[in-house]
Amino acid sequence: MEIREANEEDWPNIYPIFRVVVEQGMTYAFPENLSLEEARPWWMETPPAVTVVAVKVDVVLGSAKMGPNRPGRGSHIATASFMVEPAKQGRGVGTALGNYAVEWARTRGYRGMQFNAVVETNESALHLWKKLGFEVLTTVPEAFDHSEYGLIGLHVMYKSL
Amino acid sequence: MEIREANEEDWPNIYPIFRVVVEQGMTYAFPENLSLEEARPWWMETPPAVTVVAVKVDVVLGSAKMGPNRPGRGSHIATASFMVEPAKQGRGVGTALGNYAVEWARTRGYRGMQFNAVVETNESALHLWKKLGFEVLTTVPEAFDHSEYGLIGLHVMYKSL
Repeated sequence: MEIREANEEDWPNIYPIFRVVVEQGMTYAFPENLSLEEARPWWMETPPAVTVVAVKVDVVLGSAKMGPNRPGRGSHIATASFMVEPAKQGRGVGTALGNYAVEWARTRGYRGMQFNAVVETNESALHLWKKLGFEVLTTVPEAFDHSEYGLIGLHVMYKSL
Repeated sequence: MEIREANEEDWPNIYPIFRVVVEQGMTYAFPENLSLEEARPWWMETPPAVTVVAVKVDVVLGSAKMGPNRPGRGSHIATASFMVEPAKQGRGVGTALGNYAVEWARTRGYRGMQFNAVVETNESALHLWKKLGFEVLTTVPEAFDHSEYGLIGLHVMYKSL
C-alpha cells in the first residue's frame, strides 16, 4: 500500500467511497446525494491543505485530507478527515492514513491536531485515534443524526504535536 | 436599536467592523487583510444561514451570522458569530444580537447552538454567553494565537434549545 497526494484524476476513484461512506449515515455530516462535481470541493483540498489516497496496485483503498483547522490566528492547529472503502476496512488502511496525517502535520510545524466531529459510536475510528495518541476533549450531545441510532454525540478530539 | 437581516448594501458598512475586529487579533481566527470583496463570503451568509445587522438611525453597530453548524446529519445544531463595533461596546448590542440568534435558532427547530471557538480571554463574550445559558464544554489548548497573550485556548460552548 502506498500513500501519495491525490490529483484531479484520482477524484472519480475516491468519489464512490465518499458516496457510500456518507450515505451509510454513520460517520460523517456531509451533504448527501452529491454528484461527482458537487462532492469534489467537500473532499479535494486546496493549498495549504492536501488530499491523499491510499492505493494498492492502482486501486484506491481510502483517502484522507489534512490542513489547518482554522484560518488566520488558528492556523497552527491542524485537522484531518479519513475515509476507507468499507469492503477494505480492518486491513490497516486507516492506521496508515492516520499516521501519515500526524506526520504531515508534525513536519509542517503544526502545534496540534484537532478532530471536530468524531461520531461517538464509530468504535473503529475511536480505537485508532486513541492508539495514535488522541484524547476526547468533550462530546457535544445529540450533535449527529445517526442513520441507525438517531441523535448521538460528536467527540472533539485532540493530540499535541 | 433594530436588528434585521442584512442585505448586500449593508456589507460596506459591516466590513469596517469586520476589519478592525479581525485585526485586533483578540477574538477571531479569520484571515487578516482581506479586501471588501475577499471578506464578504467570510461573513455574508447564504440560505439556510443568515447575516443580520444591529442598526440605530441607519448606523451599523454590530452584526451576527447564524445557521447550521454542519451540513447533512449535523444540521440540527446551529452556530453563530458576533461582531460589535469596538467604539459601541458595552451598550447592549452583543446582548441583543445574542438573544436574536438564540430565538432565530429556536423558532427554526434547531436542537442546540454550538460555538466552536470562543477565545478564552474574551471576557465580555464569555460573560454574555453564560448569561444566555451557554456552558463551556471544553477548551482546546493553545488553539488561538492572541495578538497580546500569544497561544491561548479556544472554548467550545453549547446551549440546548
